[in-house]
Amino acid sequence: MAQRVLVGEMLVLVLLLLAPKTKAKAMSITRGQNNKSSRGKESSGSSDEGGAISFCLSWRLAVEANNVVAWPTVPPQCSRYVETYMINGQYDRDLDLIVEEILAYVNQTFLLGDAMDAWILDVDDTCISNIYYYKGKKYGCDPYDPFAFRTWAMKGGCPAIPSVLRLFNILVNKGFKVFLLTGRDEETLGQVTRNNLHNQGFIGYERLILRSSAYKGKSAMKYKSDVRKQLQDQGYRIWGNVGDQWSDIQGDYLGNRTFKLPNPMYFVP
Amino acid sequence: MAQRVLVGEMLVLVLLLLAPKTKAKAMSITRGQNNKSSRGKESSGSSDEGGAISFCLSWRLAVEANNVVAWPTVPPQCSRYVETYMINGQYDRDLDLIVEEILAYVNQTFLLGDAMDAWILDVDDTCISNIYYYKGKKYGCDPYDPFAFRTWAMKGGCPAIPSVLRLFNILVNKGFKVFLLTGRDEETLGQVTRNNLHNQGFIGYERLILRSSAYKGKSAMKYKSDVRKQLQDQGYRIWGNVGDQWSDIQGDYLGNRTFKLPNPMYFVP
Repeated sequence: MAQRVLVGEMLVLVLLLLAPKTKAKAMSITRGQNNKSSRGKESSGSSDEGGAISFCLSWRLAVEANNVVAWPTVPPQCSRYVETYMINGQYDRDLDLIVEEILAYVNQTFLLGDAMDAWILDVDDTCISNIYYYKGKKYGCDPYDPFAFRTWAMKGGCPAIPSVLRLFNILVNKGFKVFLLTGRDEETLGQVTRNNLHNQGFIGYERLILRSSAYKGKSAMKYKSDVRKQLQDQGYRIWGNVGDQWSDIQGDYLGNRTFKLPNPMYFVP
Repeated sequence: MAQRVLVGEMLVLVLLLLAPKTKAKAMSITRGQNNKSSRGKESSGSSDEGGAISFCLSWRLAVEANNVVAWPTVPPQCSRYVETYMINGQYDRDLDLIVEEILAYVNQTFLLGDAMDAWILDVDDTCISNIYYYKGKKYGCDPYDPFAFRTWAMKGGCPAIPSVLRLFNILVNKGFKVFLLTGRDEETLGQVTRNNLHNQGFIGYERLILRSSAYKGKSAMKYKSDVRKQLQDQGYRIWGNVGDQWSDIQGDYLGNRTFKLPNPMYFVP
């Protein structure tokens, strides 16, 4: 089904590209919307769809490069595009390539072996996936729903992201102290998250750090910066820091290198 | 011609997507190369091409999100992909969307009006384009050639990037002191760059800052951080900072917000 959707979108894009260049040029975009007025009566169904794909490509790139920030939801015209991206292989391939880059970096590191070589991984949509939850939220087109998300997380059924699980095991085997650092609430989601990670094969990490009541309502960037400072004060050397949100890898005490995994479904400040 | 290339690539991608999912899954990638061995004898010409596009999509995303760093050249199998991206409209649309984001931010700023509200723009592939030069360098697949690039720059014929020229004029009209900050050598390229910018409509900026002999051989990040520190010490408030390289927008004294313009052709440390 989803494959057919992408094939359809691609055919539309092919048709669009066959159209005269002047027509394609006229398909400018405005913030979050196709600029339909600029196309006026020349627009057709297929041009609309091709224009939407082109817009969504630009939008996703801008999100991943941290140019578009604090976006509340996926633009409505990108619902199908994000679905296709997430479930039809390109998301997995994007993750694979980044993990290869991380491993190339890992292979250049020389651990001191004093048990203070640390690595930080975010949890949601870094170690384990919420894609099945977001499927029911139009892949991020619906507004954030904290109660529904908690209900989902309480089930403890988030599947591992295979390429990150592979990275995790290599890090642990190489001797890194791996810290899993999540914005999930410690009190309500601590045990279920621990179980979920264990069931999915995340075994051998140093510590799972969840959001304590002191950080309720504070930004992820502030909370995670403070935690990293504590780790550094304890003597840990943070070699790497991986997350799907810019708030995971911005702020202070970031570590020697940071890596941004793709996530076009939601933004955490 | 180029449109036909993209159409061809898209048709290949459509064919690829029509193939069974298991086959698509088998097309894993290795660093900078299609993993041909993983496909073995099942591979076909069109699958190869589809796999290359998918790889190049991942590679470009990883470059723009700063996951792949210090890359010397564009991976050879991405030459045609990068060409198509740069000249067939998507690059322009990506720029348009980012400039719209920047303008949305600009509209939220409240300048103090004491002539100390500053904005920083990089020059090469931010204000003016080197795309015609890179066309002769296989869009970045050939290694960096400083002599050839200087010869090109000495001609002073870099065209304006239209969306950034539009941004520039809005910034100047709004009262920002716009600083153009470039790694180009002051002695050899100062006058020709000034003329090039003027001829392309970049008129009304506060200062063009080029690399002095003191910064020869130093990284762009160090050089640009030092310049920004000097501006801040002079009392300027840097509201925004825009460049096509991560070295433009990493380091110190970055400004209130940074924006990364796309550039899949080369990397400046």
